[in-house]
Amino acid sequence: MNETIKIQLNHRTIREFKNQPLPKEDLEKLHDVINMTASSNGMQNYSVIRVTDQNIKNELAEIGLQEYMRRAPELLIFIVDLYRNYKIAQEMGKENKIMIGFDKFMQGFTDACLAAQNYVVAAESLGYGTNYYGNIHNDTKKVIDLLKLPKYTFPVVGVGIGIPNQKPQLKPRMPFELKMFDNGYKKFDSYLEAIKDYDQVMQTYYDLRDANKRVDSFSKQIVKKQASLIANREDVYKAFLDQGFVINKN
Amino acid sequence: MNETIKIQLNHRTIREFKNQPLPKEDLEKLHDVINMTASSNGMQNYSVIRVTDQNIKNELAEIGLQEYMRRAPELLIFIVDLYRNYKIAQEMGKENKIMIGFDKFMQGFTDACLAAQNYVVAAESLGYGTNYYGNIHNDTKKVIDLLKLPKYTFPVVGVGIGIPNQKPQLKPRMPFELKMFDNGYKKFDSYLEAIKDYDQVMQTYYDLRDANKRVDSFSKQIVKKQASLIANREDVYKAFLDQGFVINKN
Repeated sequence: MNETIKIQLNHRTIREFKNQPLPKEDLEKLHDVINMTASSNGMQNYSVIRVTDQNIKNELAEIGLQEYMRRAPELLIFIVDLYRNYKIAQEMGKENKIMIGFDKFMQGFTDACLAAQNYVVAAESLGYGTNYYGNIHNDTKKVIDLLKLPKYTFPVVGVGIGIPNQKPQLKPRMPFELKMFDNGYKKFDSYLEAIKDYDQVMQTYYDLRDANKRVDSFSKQIVKKQASLIANREDVYKAFLDQGFVINKN
Repeated sequence: MNETIKIQLNHRTIREFKNQPLPKEDLEKLHDVINMTASSNGMQNYSVIRVTDQNIKNELAEIGLQEYMRRAPELLIFIVDLYRNYKIAQEMGKENKIMIGFDKFMQGFTDACLAAQNYVVAAESLGYGTNYYGNIHNDTKKVIDLLKLPKYTFPVVGVGIGIPNQKPQLKPRMPFELKMFDNGYKKFDSYLEAIKDYDQVMQTYYDLRDANKRVDSFSKQIVKKQASLIANREDVYKAFLDQGFVINKN
């Protein structure tokens, strides 16, 4: 097992960090890693907002409904950025609607996610803990305003990193046989049956994590987390349209 | 500089691989890494289709218009998978449209991308070369049919890996000052001016890569690659709707 894979298999979400900024030389390395990440067609259709202003951190934590977000020593928000290349084309008199269509939006979304994960692995290799904040989509529009994101850009995911101040257990994952299929999608007769053991494993995991806080099995969590909307999550598609992306309806 | 970051800074796309399958023990490690990747809310809304059938590889290469895709020893297609959790909820009599809405689609898209990048870093740490295939979106619908993807699933990106059979140069990236901004998006007065040096660097890179094959500077490539559609790329939004995802229009 090499060092990299050891780190990757050891991944867990760290929510609480020591109140200590990261040294400049580490930040530089981490930013270089982000910048070297693969991107669709080499077009680099993503950008990153680095949040150092405590007021903005507080506002994001409020939108995200996760107050520990305030205390992330280093906080980056990865965004789709079709604006930059659109502007370049525009200066050349060559811009068009294809450049800001759904296909390109997905390219930029992919670019932003790949960069975020590359950053997370690099940060963990330096001993930092990491936390993804999907909670920025609790109110995408507010985040757009807060970070002054121009049209043709869109927030994707936030990442907080710092020196861990907690040691959580590894969180069990669904068996990979349920996720990887050869040559075509495989349906199961009963999914409840297929995840039965995993449901039990997750229940035990939560019981051990905090005996006083009752947390549900995986299947019950699906209903709780996936079948309900918190805050303004239903507005994410509206926010997407408001950012000026063009949907090609054929 | 630790090993992981060294690998990440050394990333380049490998298009040609040695005709040699990967040993089982490496594949197992790589699959474990995929499975341990962070996911939105722990919901694991992604799946992976492993393409081992040469006929399917050939068809994908044809759709992708990149014939070297046929020769990827190991080929994975990462997909959004809201189907699995929807089915679990359905068996519990608790399914609803929120579970297959745009917000959850984006969660699954993010999950799939994070897993893909984690896989790429792990593969490179084992000495393999990697290649992202965004080209599956040249005809998303055809890929959906080919891989028998059910509703509430959607192809995101393909990844080919294997022992490298070429040694390409590192591809220069746009200066990070153009991509990372403190506390809010920063606009530039002239983007053509801002990328002037990078344009020159890219021109030199391409000239050195293949003196006989004239490739354009970055700005000209934007116009070529971003402002035009190949094949059926305009149909990607239609394919998205056809997969049954529900757009909440408020």
